[in-house]
Amino acid sequence: MSDAIVSETVDSVPAAGTGSVRRSRDVPMLVERARAGDPRAVARLITLVESGDETLPRIAAALAPYAGQAQVVGLTGSPGVGKSTTTNELVRALRARGHRVGVLAIDPSSPFTGGAILGDRVRMQDHATDPGVYIRSMSSRGHLGGLSAATPQAVRVLEGAGCDVVLVETVGVGQAEVEVASLADTTLVLLAPGMGDAIQAVKAGILEIADVFVVNKADRDGADATVRDIQGMIALGERGPGQWRPQVVRAVAARGEGIDDIAAAIDKHRGWLVEHGELRRRQETRAAAEIEAIALGALRDRIGSLRDGTELPALAAKVAEGALDPYAAADELLSQLGS
Amino acid sequence: MSDAIVSETVDSVPAAGTGSVRRSRDVPMLVERARAGDPRAVARLITLVESGDETLPRIAAALAPYAGQAQVVGLTGSPGVGKSTTTNELVRALRARGHRVGVLAIDPSSPFTGGAILGDRVRMQDHATDPGVYIRSMSSRGHLGGLSAATPQAVRVLEGAGCDVVLVETVGVGQAEVEVASLADTTLVLLAPGMGDAIQAVKAGILEIADVFVVNKADRDGADATVRDIQGMIALGERGPGQWRPQVVRAVAARGEGIDDIAAAIDKHRGWLVEHGELRRRQETRAAAEIEAIALGALRDRIGSLRDGTELPALAAKVAEGALDPYAAADELLSQLGS
Repeated sequence: MSDAIVSETVDSVPAAGTGSVRRSRDVPMLVERARAGDPRAVARLITLVESGDETLPRIAAALAPYAGQAQVVGLTGSPGVGKSTTTNELVRALRARGHRVGVLAIDPSSPFTGGAILGDRVRMQDHATDPGVYIRSMSSRGHLGGLSAATPQAVRVLEGAGCDVVLVETVGVGQAEVEVASLADTTLVLLAPGMGDAIQAVKAGILEIADVFVVNKADRDGADATVRDIQGMIALGERGPGQWRPQVVRAVAARGEGIDDIAAAIDKHRGWLVEHGELRRRQETRAAAEIEAIALGALRDRIGSLRDGTELPALAAKVAEGALDPYAAADELLSQLGS
Repeated sequence: MSDAIVSETVDSVPAAGTGSVRRSRDVPMLVERARAGDPRAVARLITLVESGDETLPRIAAALAPYAGQAQVVGLTGSPGVGKSTTTNELVRALRARGHRVGVLAIDPSSPFTGGAILGDRVRMQDHATDPGVYIRSMSSRGHLGGLSAATPQAVRVLEGAGCDVVLVETVGVGQAEVEVASLADTTLVLLAPGMGDAIQAVKAGILEIADVFVVNKADRDGADATVRDIQGMIALGERGPGQWRPQVVRAVAARGEGIDDIAAAIDKHRGWLVEHGELRRRQETRAAAEIEAIALGALRDRIGSLRDGTELPALAAKVAEGALDPYAAADELLSQLGS
């Protein structure tokens, strides 16, 4: 990328001089510029994607050839475990390897893109002037299906823009983790010592989705116990030969300790995915979820249009006068919706 | 009708000698027999309709020509106001005029067709041996959309079977009243003196749907106050010239008093409906709601089949390899669902 990339929230004031890109719906031009590394074009595409703009299908079509080119890593965990600090350090480590990195920071619960996310942005300012890093905060507010609607398309934009790795960071509160897992090639679950609720969350099902457990703040009391708890649960939940055994990594992200171990665990998992044909399987599962979400959205729109359409009253008149039965009328209605 | 009609609940033991009708799915035969007044054929058709049987569209098609031939009267009110007693007496009055009468007693809240409904049946045994009366209890359990799904089709069966009047009786608990109103040509709302909650219900919106208010148990203290309350609210809610002004009728159904007044009020409303072109408008509104409910059900089924289909994985594989974008894939999926 040829330009300093400024981290940007949805509602941020556009930078001066963004010119024709700023409000453009010229999809070929935007995609071309994003491919060339223009951060404003990337920002604009994600905004269009996030707002469910009418250009979305064309954007998706233009980005389709670049599918699967980025490694997608999900990070999740309860508030306070150090997700953004870990993300920040992970970005640093990936940059040191020469990777281009995209970060999507998603807050599924907050109606505003603020609070912790804005705090994250400040901490991630380390990378604000790095042209190889694109950071974006997204709110899942207003998206039916939460993350599942807009985030996959945002990942596609970052893939199209040449990111080698896309980190998707979410606050781990239930459904969000599962969605991250369905989105990611590799899912990191962050924990911290002494957080009983985190362990409860693990018991409640995070074990199913975690490829790598990171015990952050590992210099604190209770870190050994937390590691033992997780390892015990992994042993109990053993998935048999040929299955990935989740890794457990210790880190003190605030001091940059253990970051290389996290990166190594991600690499190891990546290798396992490729070796076992699992990478393609995960990408296909993700694509299926994406297609399904889009199709469901389209069906919902059609349901809405049933009430607003002009066809229904005409069919109802025929049914009322006995010229048509309601099932045949419903068929006719649906056939016209289908076009 | 040529045969004594036995009131029947969904789960009742079939009467002896119901022969080929009992489990038949031979729609033309069943409709022909129902037209000829065979109560077992009527019962069988309603059972098929109620269970969402695959023959439903064919039943609807066979019954379509008889649409609108019965006068549909809805009765609703809180538990204890005397709905079933009033229905019973109303059936007697309608029979005295030579009308064939169908009764659908619907309990939208109970998961079982029991309790009050079975009590009703006992009280309605007055008509159990009358070949001009068909009584049926229905539970709305398991029907998406409650009454809106199966009841209109059951009404169509009774119309097809030659009923001149179909009474649809429901317990008035919120949504049910509105559904009765959308189903009926004329909606009766029953109240009893001293039932503050009934008045609250009126305030909450029953006024919008009642064509006739029946103050039952009018020999009790407080009847005058209840009538005044209702009349006051009708005056406040006056809908202007050209609009129907809801009637208020006093009755003591348990003694058969006021029943003729109720019947007269129904007739008056019927006359008004015809005179103002409102009868056809209500029938069309009802047909529209029916078509919409059927179409929505079909779309829901399609949504379900998205997850189970074999097409999605194939499309997902194309998206994962970059040969197709997810929006185009969703379009393709939906186009195949549409067939």
